[in-house]
Amino acid sequence: MNLLTATPASVRQTPTVLIRGTGLLGTSIGLGLRADGHQVLLSDPSATAQAIAADIGAGTILERAAAETAPEIVVVAAPPEATAAEVAAALVRFPEAVVLDIASTKAEILATLLHLTQDDDAALTRTDLSRYVGTHPMAGREKSGPVAARGELFTSMPWVICPAVDPATGEQLSAPQAVEWAEELGRRLGATVHQMDPVRHDESVALISHLPQIAASLVASRLQDAPVSALALAGNGLRDVTRIAASDPGLWVQILSSNARPVVEILYGLRQDMERLISTLEAPRAPGGQADIAQLIAEGNSGVTRVPGKHGAPPQSFAVLTVIVDDKPGQIAAVLNDVATIGVNVEDLRMEHSAGHQVGMVELSVLPGRRDELADAMTELGWKVVLS
Amino acid sequence: MNLLTATPASVRQTPTVLIRGTGLLGTSIGLGLRADGHQVLLSDPSATAQAIAADIGAGTILERAAAETAPEIVVVAAPPEATAAEVAAALVRFPEAVVLDIASTKAEILATLLHLTQDDDAALTRTDLSRYVGTHPMAGREKSGPVAARGELFTSMPWVICPAVDPATGEQLSAPQAVEWAEELGRRLGATVHQMDPVRHDESVALISHLPQIAASLVASRLQDAPVSALALAGNGLRDVTRIAASDPGLWVQILSSNARPVVEILYGLRQDMERLISTLEAPRAPGGQADIAQLIAEGNSGVTRVPGKHGAPPQSFAVLTVIVDDKPGQIAAVLNDVATIGVNVEDLRMEHSAGHQVGMVELSVLPGRRDELADAMTELGWKVVLS
Repeated sequence: MNLLTATPASVRQTPTVLIRGTGLLGTSIGLGLRADGHQVLLSDPSATAQAIAADIGAGTILERAAAETAPEIVVVAAPPEATAAEVAAALVRFPEAVVLDIASTKAEILATLLHLTQDDDAALTRTDLSRYVGTHPMAGREKSGPVAARGELFTSMPWVICPAVDPATGEQLSAPQAVEWAEELGRRLGATVHQMDPVRHDESVALISHLPQIAASLVASRLQDAPVSALALAGNGLRDVTRIAASDPGLWVQILSSNARPVVEILYGLRQDMERLISTLEAPRAPGGQADIAQLIAEGNSGVTRVPGKHGAPPQSFAVLTVIVDDKPGQIAAVLNDVATIGVNVEDLRMEHSAGHQVGMVELSVLPGRRDELADAMTELGWKVVLS
Repeated sequence: MNLLTATPASVRQTPTVLIRGTGLLGTSIGLGLRADGHQVLLSDPSATAQAIAADIGAGTILERAAAETAPEIVVVAAPPEATAAEVAAALVRFPEAVVLDIASTKAEILATLLHLTQDDDAALTRTDLSRYVGTHPMAGREKSGPVAARGELFTSMPWVICPAVDPATGEQLSAPQAVEWAEELGRRLGATVHQMDPVRHDESVALISHLPQIAASLVASRLQDAPVSALALAGNGLRDVTRIAASDPGLWVQILSSNARPVVEILYGLRQDMERLISTLEAPRAPGGQADIAQLIAEGNSGVTRVPGKHGAPPQSFAVLTVIVDDKPGQIAAVLNDVATIGVNVEDLRMEHSAGHQVGMVELSVLPGRRDELADAMTELGWKVVLS
């Protein structure tokens, strides 16, 4: 079946999918698609990784598959820096197949592919790119490798679809049917699909993913020589800001260098704000100093209100109350049982940490209208409740 | 009773406490001490704030109290910039009382007090400072004012006790008994008490509290003009890094300007790292560039491992598994019931957010040894489990 003549809307089909690269993401895609009834073929430069992925049920190793089973979709799940070459190879080797990649940045890969079509030695033609669609599933884990893979990894996560566009002319290169199949794949894996131009995608992730990563790493690296007595005072503020600083250097080298321009543009603005703050703090009592500091914090206030919360709702649309519990099994469950009995839905839930203490604080976010009602009912049931 | 002749260890006593400043923290201290059996007197420049605090049961308004009830402890809970003057006034007006303050920074207030003792017009003497102890309860809320006050606010939170020390001579000015009463007060309010030199305290909070606040505000302010399509891709990374950017500008102006030197010293180091990253990203493919980026992320890795988790345990000492649930009342409770039945203690719990999706992801942190056992048991019970 040639997918360019059939859209997902036109028929319910489960195309045969080849996963090239059986790391965490590739193997997870394989597991998810198998669960959805697709035939999945696997291929990886590492025979071991390929074998593990097959063993845990992500698909059949390509070489072992019957010769006549040609993939209708190829998903290139290679490391970012190897992706463009793998996409080109797949487009040439499987002249009928729709080829997707899942790398974290999109413009540089597209530029490399366009460059290859102008190279006479390369077998890749501009027409081949009608079968290429760049995508970016925004799901990851601290762990990597096929063993860590899970078919549910993409559930409820954003998956960005970037149809190939010629930056020079603005002409869309990806065929509409290929784009539809890319979106369908994301939906079948439970993701929330977004469509975006490659350049706009890279600018977006620079801001909402690469900037926070850099900030977390910069702050965390200041802690390397911090006295233990200082760290003992750490609260959720420090924990939240530095959590993602535990990311993989090898991966981030590839992500940041492939998106250097959009990231550095943002860092220029950040540096300006920081320079202003530094010179203010060098003479905090000088005229205007107080106003400068207040402005920085106020700008942060207005920026953070734009970060969507659960289901895209702004964070401040929820009211928070904290229940104090003993730190023993079943306590949180007991709290939530009572909340459920009272009939209020918990929109968000967090544990308050505190070093060296055995009391837990369960932070419940609920719709503002239900907050006081819930607090009163919980207090009546004997819980220690703190509103915030 | 003169507290300088009686330590908490020597007798169980509930001294009369005057709270000067009935905002969120002052009123919360009043409520907590009342619950512990103390007589509490209240005083605030704002008659309204004072009346509200009394109405919700934080204590008796000072002017209305019987003339003979003199406070044995005075807690100055004024705004940071008003604290030193209020402490001096209290030391002079109540020549028998131990006087504490609760401002977020300590060295500047102490310097101001020492300066006042050298001022002939001021009635304050160096001897008076034996009755002064600086403290910093590390608890706060988004809301402010007496109405938001709760006696449990300090439960399991750090409370730093900073005995007054002459920076010139290193001589401790606070009397040992006064220090003991300051610590006792924190313990009676359920806090975890730490003792620290004022300068060391200010350096510590600059690193673990003021730096994360600045980073969160700087990142969040970059989002002010971000396109909605970009923000729709936001994940927990951005949410975690920017959460505390919602703080009060008025308060942070006072905190940062009173701790400008330690903060700016840290920002110099941060700026150096950022300059290095910027010049690397301006030519990411230049020799050494990749190594530079990898080093920044790696330094963040080693820094974040030093942030203590719950009960002071390092974060990576817990294993995480995610349970996927429908977004309806009672689901999280159902999950935790089953976890409790299986008999595994949940060390930490978070909801995974996802814009525009109705599936919830409950992230459970457990001891690594119990993780797989719990995952298997939960899967058997029919839950969708993702390890991470």
